[in-house]
Amino acid sequence: MVLNNSLTMSHEYALKVLHSNAIAIDATAGNGYDTLFLANHCKSVYSFDIQQTAIEHTRELLLKNNISNVELILDSHERLNQYVTHQVDCVMFNLGYLPGGSHQISTNYKSTIIALKQAMKLLGKNGLIIIVIYQGQDSGFLEKEKILSFLTTISESKFIVMKYNFCNQSNHPPILAIIEKK
Amino acid sequence: MVLNNSLTMSHEYALKVLHSNAIAIDATAGNGYDTLFLANHCKSVYSFDIQQTAIEHTRELLLKNNISNVELILDSHERLNQYVTHQVDCVMFNLGYLPGGSHQISTNYKSTIIALKQAMKLLGKNGLIIIVIYQGQDSGFLEKEKILSFLTTISESKFIVMKYNFCNQSNHPPILAIIEKK
Repeated sequence: MVLNNSLTMSHEYALKVLHSNAIAIDATAGNGYDTLFLANHCKSVYSFDIQQTAIEHTRELLLKNNISNVELILDSHERLNQYVTHQVDCVMFNLGYLPGGSHQISTNYKSTIIALKQAMKLLGKNGLIIIVIYQGQDSGFLEKEKILSFLTTISESKFIVMKYNFCNQSNHPPILAIIEKK
Repeated sequence: MVLNNSLTMSHEYALKVLHSNAIAIDATAGNGYDTLFLANHCKSVYSFDIQQTAIEHTRELLLKNNISNVELILDSHERLNQYVTHQVDCVMFNLGYLPGGSHQISTNYKSTIIALKQAMKLLGKNGLIIIVIYQGQDSGFLEKEKILSFLTTISESKFIVMKYNFCNQSNHPPILAIIEKK
């Protein structure tokens, strides 16, 4: 197909700004697939998750792929700016709960928005924040509404914000949103 | 910038399905820029407009660029299926009024939706209909609402429909919508 799903598109966009000297953040390590992807295409990655299980799954995946340029951080992305203080090129958020984990533990719009604001301060020119937003899970509808509403308030003099969504699918496919620093 | 505007993105997507044997339709010739772009990247183009001025401007632009693989049709795209009966790869709609022309003469949602339905029947597998939708002009808000509403009703078993729009811009930038035949 020409029109890819949000996950595939999230990687396509990341590749536009990743390079051998780029620095990236995976704000939601989960099972580590985005972290692995970022690590394969840039200099170093900071990867956050609040769940020990997620950090361990990510560590295993990285070991299996001989990846050593990732700093795994067992903490919430809402404290992102305590760990990263220099400019970054790409920040990925894949919201919702840990695939295979408890649906009770999920990203929530309050901490996500705090993290987004911190990430926006770290972005270099033309740097991207790439957000995959789910809308079908337990708390997904509220998070989606709150995040999309936040996106409309972002300064248009400093950032471009684009949203991609499928119009005719009944299964509520994830939405992709991208924030680019001007 | 990484995030391009809707017009640039409309060409980027068209290039994904255009090739030396492709057949394309420009449903809204206007001043001819999309027709010229399509003609440069495929075998033949059918280009429609209801305004003689638009057809003349397009003819001049094509002549200036030594383009001869375009059939110019002075008629509404709502009669598209009377001129094109075989499979096509790409159909472009750039809605609204003729740039530089009268704002009284504009595409309207009724004929646009009729044309979209006809175009959907002509699309080959993975063929694209690419629509640039304005929302700031005289009748743009109504047309936008009606077209976006129509897009949600398209069969999800036969087509993917994707919408791209800017979230934080106050000047109502155009929206890009794409219909892909499965």
